[in-house]
Amino acid sequence: MMGHLYATRMTTISKSFIREILKVTEDPEVISFAGGLPNPRFFPVKEIAKAASDVLTGADVSALQYSTTEGYQPLREYIAQRYHQKKGLEVSADEILITNGSQQGLDLVAKIFIDKDDVVVIERPAYLGAIQAFGVYEPRFCMVPLLEDGININCLRDALCKHRIKLFHTVINFQNPSGISYSRDKREELAKLFGQYDTIIVEDDPYGELRFEGAAPPSMRSWLDGKAVLLGSFSKTIAPGLRLGWVCAKREIMDKLVVAKQAGDLHSNSLCQRIVHQYLMSNDVDRHIETIIAAYKKQRDAMVAAIEENFPAEVHFTKPEGGMFLWVTLPERLSALELFDHAIREKVAFVPGTPFFVDGGGLHNIRLNFSNANEDRIKEGIQRLGRIMKNLLASG
Amino acid sequence: MMGHLYATRMTTISKSFIREILKVTEDPEVISFAGGLPNPRFFPVKEIAKAASDVLTGADVSALQYSTTEGYQPLREYIAQRYHQKKGLEVSADEILITNGSQQGLDLVAKIFIDKDDVVVIERPAYLGAIQAFGVYEPRFCMVPLLEDGININCLRDALCKHRIKLFHTVINFQNPSGISYSRDKREELAKLFGQYDTIIVEDDPYGELRFEGAAPPSMRSWLDGKAVLLGSFSKTIAPGLRLGWVCAKREIMDKLVVAKQAGDLHSNSLCQRIVHQYLMSNDVDRHIETIIAAYKKQRDAMVAAIEENFPAEVHFTKPEGGMFLWVTLPERLSALELFDHAIREKVAFVPGTPFFVDGGGLHNIRLNFSNANEDRIKEGIQRLGRIMKNLLASG
Repeated sequence: MMGHLYATRMTTISKSFIREILKVTEDPEVISFAGGLPNPRFFPVKEIAKAASDVLTGADVSALQYSTTEGYQPLREYIAQRYHQKKGLEVSADEILITNGSQQGLDLVAKIFIDKDDVVVIERPAYLGAIQAFGVYEPRFCMVPLLEDGININCLRDALCKHRIKLFHTVINFQNPSGISYSRDKREELAKLFGQYDTIIVEDDPYGELRFEGAAPPSMRSWLDGKAVLLGSFSKTIAPGLRLGWVCAKREIMDKLVVAKQAGDLHSNSLCQRIVHQYLMSNDVDRHIETIIAAYKKQRDAMVAAIEENFPAEVHFTKPEGGMFLWVTLPERLSALELFDHAIREKVAFVPGTPFFVDGGGLHNIRLNFSNANEDRIKEGIQRLGRIMKNLLASG
Repeated sequence: MMGHLYATRMTTISKSFIREILKVTEDPEVISFAGGLPNPRFFPVKEIAKAASDVLTGADVSALQYSTTEGYQPLREYIAQRYHQKKGLEVSADEILITNGSQQGLDLVAKIFIDKDDVVVIERPAYLGAIQAFGVYEPRFCMVPLLEDGININCLRDALCKHRIKLFHTVINFQNPSGISYSRDKREELAKLFGQYDTIIVEDDPYGELRFEGAAPPSMRSWLDGKAVLLGSFSKTIAPGLRLGWVCAKREIMDKLVVAKQAGDLHSNSLCQRIVHQYLMSNDVDRHIETIIAAYKKQRDAMVAAIEENFPAEVHFTKPEGGMFLWVTLPERLSALELFDHAIREKVAFVPGTPFFVDGGGLHNIRLNFSNANEDRIKEGIQRLGRIMKNLLASG
């Protein structure tokens, strides 16, 4: 009825395919590798309850009042200090804007930078949330392939020569969906390349703290300074239902982000900002994160071992050093969507590759999540998937 | 340095003048009529603390997990039922989207409807948050004057004849900044007029529950059905720091809003949605609202009485039937900005009219908030303002 009234931007974005899949997988009998959910076993429920009680029984009612757009100052200071402590970055609290999860960070960055038809480089495959958030502002996407150690620098250089690139978005550690991380060398090459161009690099890092092994390479900000906009999140280390993330950017960009945030929703939830800060002050968050890491590492190991044992030899997959996902490449004659249909019938779910591409790719890829199932379920699910793959290959 | 990288939309929006003023008024000695803050005296802190504790000590950890974009289902059902109970509207929970305050509702509505250069009608004066939220999407604003009983229908008819109007935004009860409410007759005229046009009417109603006197006229949805998009908020009845509001729209529009919300921040804070629902289930919210009404009514009465006693006779002002603001019109030879400068020196603050206009208006208007100061402070502040006005008029 009102089709003609919608803005043209609404024709280019669609509901997340993943969210639709998740509805299929609500059946508790389904072994789901589809979601991107942190394991709720590790939500610090008691500690959050204690923090909420502390915040709300204090004399200060400002946790319930309107607040500054930038966010709760002590929380911003904590985040700035942690950047220093963990990554050696000189970040001031003024350079932190608290957002509703890092998804809102993507929206705000897109809002302040992307004009219709601007060229934006995303990874191939790309984080679906970035495709959606950026897509609203109608850029032209240019997908640059990921190699095992990060972006393909030659392809990226070609793109930079050919187009005026406004933004480059990267999930730099344990990427969603591929599990790939940028090596130190790759980051240095990237820094050298971007030093020559007027392009904003959006370093999206929701999983960085979940490193199972190896040393964390430096943030792009350590080379690129003001050109690097960092996104972070408490969703994977504390709990996603609190919807708290942040953008870290130099003051000039921050001023624009604050204007956009103010126009968008005034400020993020004050109560939860206080609760998270109180939680961080009264608990050993590093020990908490170590617990998560230990569990996810075991789950990744179980998945990798089960894949090696059960998947046909022509199937390739990534072995991420952290995070929540690994990425499977099927042989050309195996369709991810066909596999999906069979898998659902056998009560195993995953995400087929196509939503992570804007160029028709992903037909022979699947994303597997290992953070939200125990080792037995992982083994059982991968066995079923392997059996289906072998049957399909034999009958194909 | 990066000026050339920003999207063109960023050139048209600016930081809220009001938020800048609020920084000036942080001095506790200043009697501030500037803010738009609910009185924190009525925040149900203990009840919220109890609700938080109940939510977090339950066996269910889903309050901390990722959740559906639409919002917490029982809270959506509560809101739908309350529309039925309070306004006689047939609303289903499917027609409610939970947002980060109603400010995000404005952003989402703008995102799905406004293309660059679309004509959007706003009230004259207009709610500043709407100017900011809509401004991001670069519409052409058409301001239509408010009369004592709502919009000037003749001017609105002219605008509808002259332009293709995409959206009309109204704060229908106790408008911010003017305090004006639409009479029943005005609403019927409006319904008749809009029946003939393909225009979305955004009925923004954050203050509707704070009615001190008179009967509440029907919502525009009761006449216009799918053309009316309603915005609501818990900020004025419970607490703004929870950042919870909603959009109520028919399913077709809702589908688009959900896509935009998902791209923007996935979903609103799950924990606070549960807390608010728990609070609503365990407390008599109507009695709570009556307490707020009784206090704000007294404060309005004190302000009106003090104005009548102290302001020069040439100064006109509105007498709102509810809400938090009244609107003062100064004689032409008195500048609101000059008055502001003198008032700040005498430690009284208000918001000069200009930010509520996009056409250079408001030079002789001021907005006064009465919800956030007690009667003695109101009397004292208005006395000072009256003295300054008289001095300026005498010296001018």
